[in-house]
Amino acid sequence: MGRAVEKLRLQVPSPPQDMDKEREALQAWKERVEQELDRVVAFWMEHSHDQEHGGFFTCLGRDGQVYDDLKYVWLQGRQVWMYCRLYRKFERFRSPEVLDSAKAGGEFLLRFARVAPPGKKCAFVLTRDGLPIKVQRTIFSECFYTMAMNELWRVTGEARYQNEAVGMMDQIVYWVREDPSGLGRPCLPGAPASESMAVPMMLLNLVDQLGEADEELAGTYAELGDWCAQRILQHVQRDGQAVLENVSEDGGELSGCLGRHQNPGHALEAGWFLLRHAIRKGDPELRARVIDKFLLLPFRSGWDPDHGGLFYFQDADGLCPTQLEWAMKLWWPHSEAMIAFLMGYSDSGDPTLLHLFYQVAEYTFRQFRDPEHGEWFGYLTREGKVALTIKGGPFKGCFHVPRCLAMCEEMLGALLGRLAPAPSPGPDCPAAVPARQAAK
Amino acid sequence: MGRAVEKLRLQVPSPPQDMDKEREALQAWKERVEQELDRVVAFWMEHSHDQEHGGFFTCLGRDGQVYDDLKYVWLQGRQVWMYCRLYRKFERFRSPEVLDSAKAGGEFLLRFARVAPPGKKCAFVLTRDGLPIKVQRTIFSECFYTMAMNELWRVTGEARYQNEAVGMMDQIVYWVREDPSGLGRPCLPGAPASESMAVPMMLLNLVDQLGEADEELAGTYAELGDWCAQRILQHVQRDGQAVLENVSEDGGELSGCLGRHQNPGHALEAGWFLLRHAIRKGDPELRARVIDKFLLLPFRSGWDPDHGGLFYFQDADGLCPTQLEWAMKLWWPHSEAMIAFLMGYSDSGDPTLLHLFYQVAEYTFRQFRDPEHGEWFGYLTREGKVALTIKGGPFKGCFHVPRCLAMCEEMLGALLGRLAPAPSPGPDCPAAVPARQAAK
Repeated sequence: MGRAVEKLRLQVPSPPQDMDKEREALQAWKERVEQELDRVVAFWMEHSHDQEHGGFFTCLGRDGQVYDDLKYVWLQGRQVWMYCRLYRKFERFRSPEVLDSAKAGGEFLLRFARVAPPGKKCAFVLTRDGLPIKVQRTIFSECFYTMAMNELWRVTGEARYQNEAVGMMDQIVYWVREDPSGLGRPCLPGAPASESMAVPMMLLNLVDQLGEADEELAGTYAELGDWCAQRILQHVQRDGQAVLENVSEDGGELSGCLGRHQNPGHALEAGWFLLRHAIRKGDPELRARVIDKFLLLPFRSGWDPDHGGLFYFQDADGLCPTQLEWAMKLWWPHSEAMIAFLMGYSDSGDPTLLHLFYQVAEYTFRQFRDPEHGEWFGYLTREGKVALTIKGGPFKGCFHVPRCLAMCEEMLGALLGRLAPAPSPGPDCPAAVPARQAAK
Repeated sequence: MGRAVEKLRLQVPSPPQDMDKEREALQAWKERVEQELDRVVAFWMEHSHDQEHGGFFTCLGRDGQVYDDLKYVWLQGRQVWMYCRLYRKFERFRSPEVLDSAKAGGEFLLRFARVAPPGKKCAFVLTRDGLPIKVQRTIFSECFYTMAMNELWRVTGEARYQNEAVGMMDQIVYWVREDPSGLGRPCLPGAPASESMAVPMMLLNLVDQLGEADEELAGTYAELGDWCAQRILQHVQRDGQAVLENVSEDGGELSGCLGRHQNPGHALEAGWFLLRHAIRKGDPELRARVIDKFLLLPFRSGWDPDHGGLFYFQDADGLCPTQLEWAMKLWWPHSEAMIAFLMGYSDSGDPTLLHLFYQVAEYTFRQFRDPEHGEWFGYLTREGKVALTIKGGPFKGCFHVPRCLAMCEEMLGALLGRLAPAPSPGPDCPAAVPARQAAK
């Protein structure tokens, strides 16, 4: 990637007609993305609100029909976060209905997410009226709880939400960096001391969330953010030729399938988390490295040359993964890839990244959108056929799709804003100017 | 099914040329099955033995290459059981190598399977040299441990194996019928008191295993066997129109996806477990009911009319399941179906069941066999394309395929033995005579 930027910077600046073409393409995508965000939000507004108990139904069939009333805590937290974020950042979503639904979801979480208050461990899934069904021995329910509470504080200004967010964040950091025994995982002598990339990724995302509008908290979590970034970077293995999902505690490759496991969509998501971190830090070397290792590398290895789309799982030695769904095409790696490539382009100006954004976005809109009933299908076969017709389920809710569309709409708007009409030719053509504000 | 048998019994007896045709077809299948069993056993003998630590590698690639050296306890126990069974029942497998490998696997289990001896809880997966990596909060590792130890006792006569088997069986029965707290599952107020069909199925299989050659144990477990059968039968719901994987403790339908979940291959496997139970009991009403509800019903709903093969999971309301692999075709439901239909035919003489055996066996041999490297592929797409090229993995070992082939070889042999050359015509043609011995 470093070289790609170099090449671009040495190019003769684009003639005005190319600039017009670029503006047109960006404008067309901005309109597609904007309309799609409206349709997707409408789907969730219409079908997912539980007026009786608060919170959201997320098990929704193709046409939005509720096929199960379970409440998955990840998805409750994510939908609260998404609604608040839309309310806060997009004037057209600043409606009482959006805010009230987010608040009702937040209150549902406050009342029911914790399994044994005042203990902070949250359930993974609850009954419709909030009784715990299952607890995961991980930090993720708690992370989405924190994101929800922090956003609720930002839109309402009510301190109790922020107290919840910060208190839960402290607990999560303690589990991750001090003592994981409270999560309830048994220590078995044969289990390797391994780190899943999901953990530092999720934490880095929380550092970003909590510190974004709060200089004091940003300072509090600055060292944590660096630690997360360093831990994520340890997942680049094999002389920089592979991102591995699981590595040893001291940053080495683990043996067997666990060690060889790859998840291209996850690497791309980590990529944009890291890119935001590098931009905040003002670290150009890290930005170039992230684009190279977490955007271009996973795309090159993870894109299916025969049918298009990103594989769900891969084995770093090219062996057959043991997960039955390894070759399926899931919606979320594609929404993460759209964010990552557009952010990479906004930051670097490298047209390679813009073309990758177009390539992924074309595939994604063509294959995942449901023009008939709205929202996206989540699960396609390798060949791109719809394998599951559900629009929501235990892991798919109101999150990846609208987050992607909202972020892309913002980034496309910022890129268009930077394309001044008929700029005077010069060595730094506008597209090559790093645009940090676009990645916010 | 009752009506199908009735119809057959009223038919004019088959003319001699039809009998010849039937004999030819059965003979051809017996030869195919016999040769395939040889190839399959050769694959495991060649690739799976860990000469250094004992036990078996089961993570084997298409050509038998070990791609991970983890030892899954289910699969260790199953391979020991399979080797002993082959050694005991088939003269051509009565070799020192088969016996020694089974014993080495048994010793590996004795030394390493239990997580904290003398406690009986077994690990789910071990390192190559036997350190525990993961424990499941279920009874299944212990069940396969019991099957292995009982078969080892039968082939070696060493009492210590049988003591292990009976001691573990007592523990399993205690967990299932008295107090499950030793399994370590938390009791959460929202979790419905549900029963997975796997539990009484597995227990019924153990009752069969332990009682088969031991009248005293058969007596000890007689009440347990009846209890298991009754519990399995509770999974027939909706006025007899659906077998549901999970029901409430008192035998009612559960709400949501959990309640609607169906697994046609599992129902068929339960079918032949129940059929053996009904034959042991000499209960003709139960035999007919089992064939109707656990053989014909799951096949009718579970067979893919477009591409052939049994779906892995279904929803009783015809909604889309939430499991990504629901429409894939897995090897084991097909091997279970082959056993079930051939056993059903051997017992009832209903030609419908023989034709279903042929239909499933043709599909299975065509789609799952690997003529190049031996053994079967385990995981196909809905359309029948190989999705995973592995021959063994965390859940596929030396068990379902050879068990199916061995049982079919025995049943086909018994059926051919009953087809006396040119029988005198009469109202009870030979194929309609229930042949209990064929199901042993």
